[in-house]
This record gives sequence, C-alpha cells and structure tokens, in this order.
Amino acid sequence: MGSAAIVACTQDNSWAARFAQVRAQTEQLSAGLSAEDCQLQAMPDASPTKWHLAHTTWFFETFVLLRHLDYRRFAAGFDYLFNSYYHGVGPMHIRAERGLISRPDLATVRRYRQHVDAAVQAALAQDALSAGALALLELGLHHEQQHQELILTDIKHALYANPLRPAYRATAAAATQPGTSPALRWRRFDEAIVAIGADEDGFAFDNERPRHRVLVPAFALAERPVTNAEYAEFVRAGGYAQPLLWLSDGWTAVQTEGWQRPLYWSKDLQSEFTLDGERELIAAAPVCHLSYYEADAFARWAGARLPTEFEWERAAANRLINGNFVDSGRLHPAPVAADGDCLFGDVWEWTASPYVAYPGFRPAVGAVGEYNGKFMCNQIVLRGGSCATPAAHIRASYRNFFPPPARWQFSGLRLARDA
Amino acid sequence: MGSAAIVACTQDNSWAARFAQVRAQTEQLSAGLSAEDCQLQAMPDASPTKWHLAHTTWFFETFVLLRHLDYRRFAAGFDYLFNSYYHGVGPMHIRAERGLISRPDLATVRRYRQHVDAAVQAALAQDALSAGALALLELGLHHEQQHQELILTDIKHALYANPLRPAYRATAAAATQPGTSPALRWRRFDEAIVAIGADEDGFAFDNERPRHRVLVPAFALAERPVTNAEYAEFVRAGGYAQPLLWLSDGWTAVQTEGWQRPLYWSKDLQSEFTLDGERELIAAAPVCHLSYYEADAFARWAGARLPTEFEWERAAANRLINGNFVDSGRLHPAPVAADGDCLFGDVWEWTASPYVAYPGFRPAVGAVGEYNGKFMCNQIVLRGGSCATPAAHIRASYRNFFPPPARWQFSGLRLARDA
Amino acid sequence: MGSAAIVACTQDNSWAARFAQVRAQTEQLSAGLSAEDCQLQAMPDASPTKWHLAHTTWFFETFVLLRHLDYRRFAAGFDYLFNSYYHGVGPMHIRAERGLISRPDLATVRRYRQHVDAAVQAALAQDALSAGALALLELGLHHEQQHQELILTDIKHALYANPLRPAYRATAAAATQPGTSPALRWRRFDEAIVAIGADEDGFAFDNERPRHRVLVPAFALAERPVTNAEYAEFVRAGGYAQPLLWLSDGWTAVQTEGWQRPLYWSKDLQSEFTLDGERELIAAAPVCHLSYYEADAFARWAGARLPTEFEWERAAANRLINGNFVDSGRLHPAPVAADGDCLFGDVWEWTASPYVAYPGFRPAVGAVGEYNGKFMCNQIVLRGGSCATPAAHIRASYRNFFPPPARWQFSGLRLARDA
Amino acid sequence: MGSAAIVACTQDNSWAARFAQVRAQTEQLSAGLSAEDCQLQAMPDASPTKWHLAHTTWFFETFVLLRHLDYRRFAAGFDYLFNSYYHGVGPMHIRAERGLISRPDLATVRRYRQHVDAAVQAALAQDALSAGALALLELGLHHEQQHQELILTDIKHALYANPLRPAYRATAAAATQPGTSPALRWRRFDEAIVAIGADEDGFAFDNERPRHRVLVPAFALAERPVTNAEYAEFVRAGGYAQPLLWLSDGWTAVQTEGWQRPLYWSKDLQSEFTLDGERELIAAAPVCHLSYYEADAFARWAGARLPTEFEWERAAANRLINGNFVDSGRLHPAPVAADGDCLFGDVWEWTASPYVAYPGFRPAVGAVGEYNGKFMCNQIVLRGGSCATPAAHIRASYRNFFPPPARWQFSGLRLARDA
Repeated sequence: MGSAAIVACTQDNSWAARFAQVRAQTEQLSAGLSAEDCQLQAMPDASPTKWHLAHTTWFFETFVLLRHLDYRRFAAGFDYLFNSYYHGVGPMHIRAERGLISRPDLATVRRYRQHVDAAVQAALAQDALSAGALALLELGLHHEQQHQELILTDIKHALYANPLRPAYRATAAAATQPGTSPALRWRRFDEAIVAIGADEDGFAFDNERPRHRVLVPAFALAERPVTNAEYAEFVRAGGYAQPLLWLSDGWTAVQTEGWQRPLYWSKDLQSEFTLDGERELIAAAPVCHLSYYEADAFARWAGARLPTEFEWERAAANRLINGNFVDSGRLHPAPVAADGDCLFGDVWEWTASPYVAYPGFRPAVGAVGEYNGKFMCNQIVLRGGSCATPAAHIRASYRNFFPPPARWQFSGLRLARDA
Repeated sequence: MGSAAIVACTQDNSWAARFAQVRAQTEQLSAGLSAEDCQLQAMPDASPTKWHLAHTTWFFETFVLLRHLDYRRFAAGFDYLFNSYYHGVGPMHIRAERGLISRPDLATVRRYRQHVDAAVQAALAQDALSAGALALLELGLHHEQQHQELILTDIKHALYANPLRPAYRATAAAATQPGTSPALRWRRFDEAIVAIGADEDGFAFDNERPRHRVLVPAFALAERPVTNAEYAEFVRAGGYAQPLLWLSDGWTAVQTEGWQRPLYWSKDLQSEFTLDGERELIAAAPVCHLSYYEADAFARWAGARLPTEFEWERAAANRLINGNFVDSGRLHPAPVAADGDCLFGDVWEWTASPYVAYPGFRPAVGAVGEYNGKFMCNQIVLRGGSCATPAAHIRASYRNFFPPPARWQFSGLRLARDA
Repeated sequence: MGSAAIVACTQDNSWAARFAQVRAQTEQLSAGLSAEDCQLQAMPDASPTKWHLAHTTWFFETFVLLRHLDYRRFAAGFDYLFNSYYHGVGPMHIRAERGLISRPDLATVRRYRQHVDAAVQAALAQDALSAGALALLELGLHHEQQHQELILTDIKHALYANPLRPAYRATAAAATQPGTSPALRWRRFDEAIVAIGADEDGFAFDNERPRHRVLVPAFALAERPVTNAEYAEFVRAGGYAQPLLWLSDGWTAVQTEGWQRPLYWSKDLQSEFTLDGERELIAAAPVCHLSYYEADAFARWAGARLPTEFEWERAAANRLINGNFVDSGRLHPAPVAADGDCLFGDVWEWTASPYVAYPGFRPAVGAVGEYNGKFMCNQIVLRGGSCATPAAHIRASYRNFFPPPARWQFSGLRLARDA
Repeated sequence: MGSAAIVACTQDNSWAARFAQVRAQTEQLSAGLSAEDCQLQAMPDASPTKWHLAHTTWFFETFVLLRHLDYRRFAAGFDYLFNSYYHGVGPMHIRAERGLISRPDLATVRRYRQHVDAAVQAALAQDALSAGALALLELGLHHEQQHQELILTDIKHALYANPLRPAYRATAAAATQPGTSPALRWRRFDEAIVAIGADEDGFAFDNERPRHRVLVPAFALAERPVTNAEYAEFVRAGGYAQPLLWLSDGWTAVQTEGWQRPLYWSKDLQSEFTLDGERELIAAAPVCHLSYYEADAFARWAGARLPTEFEWERAAANRLINGNFVDSGRLHPAPVAADGDCLFGDVWEWTASPYVAYPGFRPAVGAVGEYNGKFMCNQIVLRGGSCATPAAHIRASYRNFFPPPARWQFSGLRLARDA
C-alpha cells in the first residue's frame, strides 16, 4: 500500500457502489505486498493476505452466487481451500496450513476476485438478487470489512517474524511526537436499566441482538484509554513479576510465554514494531497489542477494573462515531487528545465481559448461522474499533471478541470503577 | 471407606465440634485407601488423596495457627509441598508433580493432621482465636469440604487409569435398577428483577457476594436434570459426529480428545465406571461426567439451552436443600424421582454463565483473597452440588466453577428455554 | 522447470565453467516455480526453494569471497538469514521459520546470486583465489549439488501439503508402464579385508576419509533394489500391523505417525504423488520414500537384512556409475532393468550402518568443519544417489545420511544376507 | 535397604541356590522403601520399584512356568500390567503409566513373588524343567540382575523429583574424601584383528554373539575414567556454552533441556544428589550421570575421543573383573585409585559405537527374541558395569545400551585417542 489515503467512503449508497467500494478497499490494502508477503502465516490464528483475499470472495461466491443464481465455481478445490469454518457447507482446509498454499498463486486469486465481482455486479445490474440474497450480500460486505482489519493485523504479525523487521508499506505515515498522557478524568453513571444491543433497523450481526434491557449498577468510566506512558510505568514497576496482580491463567501465560511487555515493544521500552517498521513509542497514544490478561492486570494495579460491555455500550450510546480508523491511513493509534471524546477508534478495548449470547439470541438462519454463535465460549468482548477498522464498520452495539491470550490485534483498555 | 454411612452431621454446633466433624469426615473418606492409592495422580488437574489430606491441614496451619498463635510448623518443607496456589504466602511445588511425593508418607501426613487438629482444638479450648482467626477457621472448614468432594472425584479418576478398574471401596452401595426417565416437565418464570448472591448473614464465599439485583427475562426451566437414557439417545443419534451441534472449541475438543460418550461410559453404552467399579448404567439417573461442551451440545440438540446461573438461582431460592449428597453414602447419582424437586445434589449442573465477578466484588482480605477471584476467567459456573458434596456445604447461592473441558467432576445438566 | 533436459555436464573443466554450470543448474531447477512456491516450507527439515537459492550463495560469499577477497556482503542481515548451522561464523535464523521470510523476495535473491556469481567469476578471471580458496570453491560446488537434490525433495514435500496436489513442472516426463519386477538375483562376496573410503586424490567430503581397511565377512547382495510391487505385497500382507517385524522405535513411529504405506502412496496402493503430480504406481520401479524403519521391517519380513555400508561400498567399488540421475530429467525412479547393474541412481539405499566417523577421521579445517562431523549421531548411512542426484556428484565412497524416520528423500533399499 | 552389606554371592552353584540368591537380592534392594516409594515413576523411561518387582516375576511366570509346566497365573490382569514390551506374548500396559498402578499393592506383589518363587523351586526340586526351560530360567536371572540396577537408578531419579531430596536408605555409606584425580596415563594398542563378542560357552545375551573378528586400528586408551574434578573444569571453562564442542543433536539437547552440568550436580558444583541424599562431590571419583552428548563433548574439549566398543573390549579382554559394584554396598562411584586397573565397575562407559547387530546376529528364539534385537537403533553401547551392577552380572563382552540423551544411569566416560 502506498502512502495515499484510503479510498474515501462513497456517497453513492447503491448496492453496486457499496460492493465496489468495499472490494476495492481490500485490494488497496494488499496492493503494496509481494506475492510472497501475501503467502505468510506465522501462527494458526492469523491468515495469509492471499487467503483473506480469496476467502472473502468465496463468501460471496458461496452464499450469494451459488445459492441464488445460476453460477459455477471459478475453480475446483476453492470451496475446500477457502472455507474458513463453515461445516454447514462442507469440509475445509486445515487452518494452520493456509500458508502452505502456493497454488493458486496471487495473480489467480486476483482473477478470482474479478470474476466474482463481475458476477455480483451483473446480478445487481439485472436486479437478480432477492431480499434474502441481498441480506447475505450485505453480510458479506461487513464480513469483508472484518477481514480488512485482519489483513493488517495478520501481516503485521507475519512481518514481525522476519528478523529484518520490514515495513508493510513503502511510504510511511509521518512520525508522531511522543507527547505526554493527558490527565485522566472519570465520567460517572447512575444505576439504570438500559437497552443493550442493536434494534431491528439497519445492519447488525446476529450477536448484537436482540436488543434487551439490562440493569447496570452505578459506575464510573475513564474518559480516555490507558496510554503507553501509563503502561510503561506498570512494566517498570515490575508488574510482570507480581503474581498477585494477575488472573491465574494470566500468570501462567506470563510464565510459559515469557511475556515482559506488550507484543511488539522493544526491550528498552523505547520503541515498537509498527506497520511502518520500528518506530519510537508514543507516550500519549493508547497502549495496544495487549492480551486480556495484561489489560486486567494493569487495571488491578491501577486500583480500577475493566468495564463490562454493558457499561461500555451505555457510555457509547448516542455518542458520535469519530476517531482514528483505518480511513485515516495512519494505521497506528494516535496520541489521545486532552479533551478527547474517544470511545471509538485507535484501539479495541477489552471489556470484563465474556462473550456470550444475549437473552433470546437466535443465530442467523442457514450456514451463516455459524458466523458468530459457535464462538461464544472462552472469548472476551472488545468494543469500539481500532485504527485498523473501517469507520463505516463500527457501531456502539458492535461486539468484537478474542480469546484472553490474543495480543496481535490493536487491543488496549479503558479503566472503570464502581461508583 | 467401608459401606458404613458417612458420619452424621453433628448437632453440637460449637467450633470444636464442627471442626472435629469435618476433619473426621475427611479421614473417613480416605480410610479404605492404601498408601499407594493415596499417592495417585493421573492428571495435573486432580491431586492425590494424600495431598488433599495434607493441603487442608496446611490451610489451618498457615492461615489460623501460624498467623494467630505462637505455633511452629510441623515439619520443614511442608509449606512448599502443600501450598496449592497461594503466591501471597510463598512459592509452591509443581501441581503436576504432586503424585511424585512419596515422602512424607501417608502415616506422617496422618500424624500431621493429628498435630494440627490438637493445636486447633487447644486454641479453641483456650478461646485463643480472635474473630478474624475464627473466620479463617470457618473458611478452612468449607475449604476442607470442597476437598472432600475432590478426594472422591480425583480418586475415581486415578483408579480409572488402572486397566483393572478397581473399586474405591470394599463394600459397595446396593445396585440400582436402570429404570426409565420420568417425563420432562417445565416450570415457567416471568421476567423479574431478582436478588442474586449471598447476603451478609452466615458463611458464603467471597464470589457469592455482594448480593445484587439482576433483571432476569422470562424463561422456563426443566424440573429435573437430563438422564442417562436421554443422553444415550443423543450419542446413538450421532451427536458426537455433527459439528453444527457444538461450540467451536467443543468440536475441537471432540476431535482432538476423541470423545465419543461421557467419561467413564463403556463403549456399548451399557455400563459405566463408578466408585464401586464397573456398574450397569442407570437409565433414569442424571447423566454426569460431562464437559460443558457436551452439556451445551446436548441442549442444542434437544432444542433447548442451558440456564444462566441467575435463572438457576432464581429457581433455587427458598427451595429446600434436600437431595442425594455424599452423606447418603451412595457416591453416585440416583434415579430421578417422577415428582422430583431436585435442584440440589446428584450432579453439578453446568450453567450458561461464565464465572465472573459480581458487581462490586471484593476478594477476601489477605492471602485467602487468592481463593476465588483469580480464577474468574475461562471457567463456567456450575450449580447445585452433587452426590459427592457434603449436604452442609451447599447453598442456593453457591457458585462452583470448572473449565469447559473438565469431565471428571459429577457434572451434568438441566435444560432451560426462553419463555 | 520445463520439460527441457537438464543442462548437460560441460566438457570445459575449468573452475569458471564448472562454477557456471552448477550455478545454472540450480537456477534451472527453480525456473518454473512461482515466488510463492519458492517460499514454501511444510516442516522444519525441509527448506524453501528460495532459501536454498540464497544459502548456497551465502556459502560462496562467506567461505570464498569474504574470507579470501576484498568483498562486502550483498545485503545486511543475509549472514543471519542464510546461515544454515555454522555456529563458527555466527548466529542464525530459526530453521523452522525459513518459510516466514518474504523479504528478501525471490527477485532480490536472484540478484544476490548474480552478484556473487559475478564476484566469483571476476576473482577466477584474475586468478585471485588461493589453493585454499579454490578448495572451498570446490566444496561449495558439491554443497550446491546437494542442495539441488534438496530443492527437488523439499518442493515435492511442500506441494504435497496442498490438497490440490499440484505438479512441480508444467510439462511432465512421459508416463511409464507399470511392468513387473524382474527376478531377484544375488551376488556373493567372500570374506575379505577391503579398503573403505576415499583416497586422497580428487574431491571427497571429509566424512569419506581416511581410507582405511575393514574386515568384511562373507555376504550376498541383491542385484537390484526392492520394487514397488514387492513392497506393496508387504503392505497387503499386513506388514504395518505386525510389531514383531519392526525395530522398537520403528513400531513407535508406525503407531504415532499412523504410517500405513510409503509416503506419497495413495490409500489404494495404485498411485503415488510425484513431481509430475499424481501418477500410477510403477510396479517394477524401486520403492522409495521409505524411512529406515520401513526398509528394515521389509528386509526382516523378506527373510533378509540391509547391507552394511561396507558391504555396499565393496560391491560398488570399481563399478561404472551409470543410472537414473537428475540429468535424465525423469525426476522419478525408473523401472529396474531385468539385467540391471544398478547400484547407483534411482533411489538412495538405506544401509544397516549408523553414520559414524571412520577411524582417524578429522573434520575439515575451519568453519566448514561443521559440515559433516557434528551430525554423526542418530543418523543412518544411505548409499548410491537417486533420481534427484546430479550424476557428477556421486561416488562409490559417498555417504549420505538421514535420521531413521526421514521419508521425504528418494530413499529405498536393497536386500543383503549372510553368506 | 539398610546399611547391611548386599547378600554375598553364594558358593552353592545349583539352580535352586542361584535362583534364590538373585531373587533375595532384589527383595533386599527394595526392603527399605515404603509402599509409596515403590510406586514412584517420574518419567516414562524409569519404572516404579513395585513394577520391577512384579515384572521380573512375570518374566519367570511367562517364560518358564507357563510355557513349560502345568501352572496358572497368580492373578488375572498381571499378564497385561507387567509385560514390558513383548508383543509376542500379548498387549501391555502403557509404559508411561506404570506409576498409576496402585492395585495390586506392594504387599500383593510380594506375595506374587513368593508364589512364583515357590513354583520355580518346586519345579527345580522335581527336575521338571527341560534344558530349554533352564536356559530361560538363566536368562531370567540375568534379566532380574539388570532390573536390580534399574531399581537403584530409577528410585534415585524418582526421589530427586521430591524437593525434599530424601535418601534411598536410612543408614548411608561412610562419606568419602574429595581427593584429587590421579594423573592420567595412556595404554597403547597396536593394530590387530581381534575376536569380539562372547563365545558359545557360558551365558551371554544374544547381542554379544556371534564372536567374530574385527580389524581394530592402533589406538591408545586412558587407564582410568574421567573424574569429577576434570569434568568440573570443563563446566567452568564454559563447555556447555560452546556449540562447536557438541554434536548437533547434543547442542539441541543442551538448549532445549537447559543442561548446565551433569544430572544431580548442584549449581555451585560442590555437591550432588546420591542414593544417600545430597553429598559433597568427590573430586577423584569418576564423573557420572552424563548423557552420551556430554561425554562426547568433554572428549572433544579434552582433545581426545570416546573409544569404540571394540577398542574397549580389546582392552578389557582377559582383565580381572574387580571393581566397585553393587556388592560393595557403596552405591556410588568411588575415587579412582592412583594405580587403578579399573575398566569394570563404578560407571558405565559410553563408547563411540552405536548399538548394532554383530555380523551373523540371530535373535534368541521365541518371544525372548524381542529382548535385545529390536532396540538396535538410536542407542549407544556402554561398557563395563557400574556401582549399581551386580559383580556376577558383568562380562568383558557385555553390551549395555541407552539412547544418547539418557542421563539417569551411572554413566561416565573413558578417553581414547588415535595412536
């Protein structure tokens, strides 16, 4: 990817335009990577860029074109190679071995994208898609936006495995001054019964529904996320050596993984690996690439706690969604503004809430019912979106989720406390 | 242990009598085991009987005698060997290697128990324990009751590793007729704001507090647990071969662990390993030794779901605590009565609720603050007690917790559904 | 690689010509592979093609150019990335992570090769290399020929990880008729004291020296290798299910790896994966892709044994080195001729001899002393070269070696028995 | 075991007396251990004392009593539990889980021994055993002597897993003065064709036969083993940090296992764990508990090498077998005498020879053919016996063998060099 700004969000809100925009955005994110870069997979949880390019295409092919139109698969075997985890549509390639697929090569995958794009656009032009098909098309667009974020976090992880520590793009964002953390202010909320989740208007994932009432006790929430400077203080205070600060599983992870600081930080706590290569650590920027265990331990050390997802959503409801998203082209958290109103963007914020079904949850009908529901175990909800999230993708009710040890996302934290 | 009944709950409610009763109960549970039996550890999660005997004693020695009296440890090294996970009081032996401790031998551990018992009783006789010390003594008694249950589940697991499949005790409980499952009835609950957790009167673990209000939507709860007959139907219907029935992590466990049926069931689904050795499967008894994944999959297959812990507690509040506990001497789930009012006993019931802190949770003060709070991640709440739980130990607000894959507890399920 | 014949061995025996020929051969072997193919690594023992291209170049750069000339490294970091296992020259990249190096890309590695080639040729043109430097240059050429074979075996292994089972080259060798195994004849040798190893004339690896005398008892050696048809009979006879046929470690490998037939054979024993993709199994061709354990078990089943490396070398001494080498372009074992005199080529033959030092062994001086000696443990000697070995590379005294479980080489066997 | 001397070798050479003596010796070695001690297994390679007691009994029951007499097994299931690795007689319990067998208990195993002893003695008294049966009886006695050594090395290993580091016996051997290593003298041998292996007279294992001629080049052999003082010098010189001193697999073991010194040595190199507990390191005693890798690395550091097993046997042939064996009751290597003629006893000496078949090797007939032959891979020959070997058990032709990483035997080394 060059230094050029990310494709601006289109004003044309037709399906054709939206589809074209999202698909182009994905292309742009991978445009600066070599065929070899696009092949990299350094752990089972992360996937090669090429696989993301193909899998998002497979999604449209499988759930829109094949189910609703007279269409033939682009190539034999792609149903197997590029199915992620949908048992309902057939068996799939081993997740940990996605990086071993040299054929199809990148050029073929790009042709695959063009082929499917053309078929979708043709169907749209002919009004050939039913409401159900269009709903799956919309799901596919949001799905692709999720993979746009993963393209960035996964390639960052993969390039970090290279001892040369190469940058993702040739022309980097301008360097940022380290700065200092603005003072931490708290906002108080009284006990209330609040409506949580997405209502039936507009797009939302099945896991955001049904909208339901929750009794949320009084609490206070920090006005900004925890910064690098604050977290560095925790590291220097020996936070990684005090078992009493940690959840039991967290302490085990610290010991077995040898964690001493956030993923990507240098040993001297002065710099970190970014999509632009090794860069000076920005004191006033939100700390990121933390596991849930680290976020939780920091909060305990700070005499606070993580907010529940209900507390977070309550604070976020009716808030303007502005912030540092992928659209800024920065691709890294930015310093927190002194008067920031920054619940969205920069870093995903670990909540205290395990990812479970809302009361009355119903998985989406059909094979896409596997999209969210089957992961409702051993994961924690994160909220708010990050510097790698498309701005158009995020909502106050949006529930991201990762296992507690995951560190390769742009994941940070915001403090809460009982009122 | 012989076939004799478990020591009856004493009527004398003095500290001295309660202490003596609980300690004697532990001795009785291990009385029929050889020194070699008491040494067995077949996985890191389970501990040798001898270790349980010593650790529960270490608890009183460490938190009551050493902190509040002029007392010297019984023997050097025991602080290290028999500390389970309390970093606040010092380092500890490797959990997975508890079975490698042949010295001290069982006879020495029994002397250790007598030594500590005498010191505690002397202190009680002299009124030498402060209110704080007595609170820790009480905690120690509940702690020991938990280990009484673990003695049974852990030795069951360890003896199962022996291809001869020996029985835990010489004289078994009388055999039970297989019977049939009574019809399943449902009880409906309307939406309500309910008080959850223990109030400040009487003993409860820190994780049951503070009592707080929760908005619980309307739901229905089965009047009895799922039985062996019902679960066998799920097995025969191919439940373990249908990925769409399982949580993603559950399906992974099925594949990697090769699960085909509950732990301890024979391949032909006709018998199961019990503390009395191999026994015919009782159709009408609650199914047990299920992981959370299996409980969840069964519920999905049955068109229902697991109850939340709030739903369960709401149904259990004000219910009489009767049921099949360790006190019956049966040591195995009993057939469900047709008109059963059986929320307690027989099997721990997996809920749908991850184990997290209640709003306003404060860990107990001091090193015993590590007792519960640090495990609030990657675990699921179970409710109700089992055939291995002392009757005096259970409460409607009691929260047991185990990781989703755990199968060696007497863990079963009860169905719920949206109203 | 196209179907074109491999570059013919040059008649010009100058250093410049030999260097150019060997280097060009390597290029040709990788010419048909994409950048993504060249990145593949499906197990730690095998390396990506790109890594082979770079490492062989690093060898000349490190041991010839940097040690003997005024030369600067082509690029920073390459000393680390492309050092295989020479602790004497510095630390090195993790072997299992060679497939995670997307940068330098393939084009850069090709430029690296050209750069080093030019420097070597310039030095040769100016007679700037001492005798010692020329000895290292010669070692480097033989080293590169070894990697030529590994390029083929490693890419075969990596492509096999792709469920599409793609072919290594676009234009395959002509198909071969299955045929039948020619009758097995034995050749008898009387007891003798024989000279084993390479004499001081000409090139040989240090592990082939010193030439020394060995008392070899009388024995008989099969005139041809074991064929696919014979091995299939062993498979069908249940050879993989009879523990008494196997070495103890071999039986463990069969159990834990689930071996049921040679690597690359189809389940129905009718076809096998080759560098030309899936092909019919040729009954009369030597069986290959066997571990030592399988070769040993087959020999026991056949009432015979594997030959020692001394028996093999005695039979091979003074024999003409003709056979099916990489030069034929076939890249797969060919049917055994009825009157074959075929000790060389087609398949490496497992001997019964662990790889140890000859009496008086001295490792080569300097860092290249790590080339052979440090592997003299837990490996078995193979003899004779294969269909992937350059004809100019093999000798009667040549000692190849792999660990007993290795299967991804073109490794087969020849029977021996006591006379 | 008390401090009493080991049972003296009987003068009565009848089968009955020999059988009684060997069996009693085994009992005596375990007499001082508790039932819990006898249950310990801290790694798959080592077995519990109780298992050794039972397995050696199983050997006589299976190969002598059941095959040659009208005899019924002592108890059901023992054929499965106490079969070590003889596939020819049936399936067997998992090796790594021998420590999980609490039933039968130790008392039952002792009765098992008495039962089988009585049956064997009755058969001997009635002359009921054929020559073939007597040959298996003799094999069983040598087999039991091997397990006597393993009882000691295995319990040493298991007790070391206890952080209290308890002693094997109540009354220890008298302490030894550290002393200093006597000067190292070398003995030179000219090239010769020597007869290697056991002739057909007297007992020997099948792996010592057939006796055959080997051409052994000239060499020199150290007159004594390497001492603790010499090895400590290697440790202090940084031997464990210099990859160039190590075989490749050895260096990997150093890295992955974190080896820094011999097993059982204290970090300050001043003491070591012995069967009498922690004791001061005796400078002049042979170093032991080395892996092959460490022995090999030391030899390289010392400018020497390990002897081949042929060199060793040549030096040992016709040498008087005296030395520090288990019979001394010392149970630990003793200081090397200045004028020592000490090829036997104290420590097993790693040779440079992988364990392979002698030319013309034929495994013993029947199921005991699995005794030795199937281990002829991935193991190295050790020679000479140790302080835990019965004196009557060792021979110049005796070939012990262990995998290169094994450290829990009394294994040391003797230097050799080319002449």
